[in-house]
Amino acid sequence: MTDTSTAVLETVPDWECLRLLQTRQVGRIGFMAGNQPLVLPVNYAVDNGTIVIRTGLGMKLANAPLTKVAFEVDDIDEASEEAWSVLVQGVAEDVTTGMDPCSERLRALAPRPWVGGERDHYIRVVPREITGRRVRSAS
Amino acid sequence: MTDTSTAVLETVPDWECLRLLQTRQVGRIGFMAGNQPLVLPVNYAVDNGTIVIRTGLGMKLANAPLTKVAFEVDDIDEASEEAWSVLVQGVAEDVTTGMDPCSERLRALAPRPWVGGERDHYIRVVPREITGRRVRSAS
Repeated sequence: MTDTSTAVLETVPDWECLRLLQTRQVGRIGFMAGNQPLVLPVNYAVDNGTIVIRTGLGMKLANAPLTKVAFEVDDIDEASEEAWSVLVQGVAEDVTTGMDPCSERLRALAPRPWVGGERDHYIRVVPREITGRRVRSAS
Repeated sequence: MTDTSTAVLETVPDWECLRLLQTRQVGRIGFMAGNQPLVLPVNYAVDNGTIVIRTGLGMKLANAPLTKVAFEVDDIDEASEEAWSVLVQGVAEDVTTGMDPCSERLRALAPRPWVGGERDHYIRVVPREITGRRVRSAS
């Protein structure tokens, strides 16, 4: 089946993926909890090419060892049917405590979460691959 | 660390999760591709309590056997810092062909993708669990 849609799908170049990642405050992290994939929205900031997420103790990634994750950010306009999305494939690490010399710096940088309460874990995602795509209306 | 944010996090009841799922056209599906989690935005429709996604051949779920997935839909207002999200945990199945007596019906129902070209796979996600949360500004 071929659609008659006139929209076009473009690959977003690397440099623009990095720029787009810095334009939003909320992304979605995907990871395995046991054998079940989960996708959860999270506040984030970009720090020196890595994604820093602030989250609560309840989140499964807190205290976990290095874990493969996906981190997705997008901007979707359902009215105009234009959209972009950036997907980061990488490894997540709880950098709240421990030996990481960057922790203090990350703590200062980390995004203010919208929700009060105990959200004192900082997860850093180190990208292994960043890809992006954009849907443009051709009209 | 306790934040001074006045926003409150609410659990969204089941009936409202189902209603919210029907208010959007684009969600995000999370699944494992090999040992790497992926999160990709997709067009969808709700059909009789299941999520129907229309996608291209390139998507890893096409032709895959029953696969555990997460499907997330949200509406995030970065300006007001209000947001809701609904997470479906379930099993995805390619219902494009085969014995599924619903296929024709799904084909007729399925969301029109924004992007032209070969997007002729239909993936149905049967929910096992649906949860939602909402952030409201307390002010």
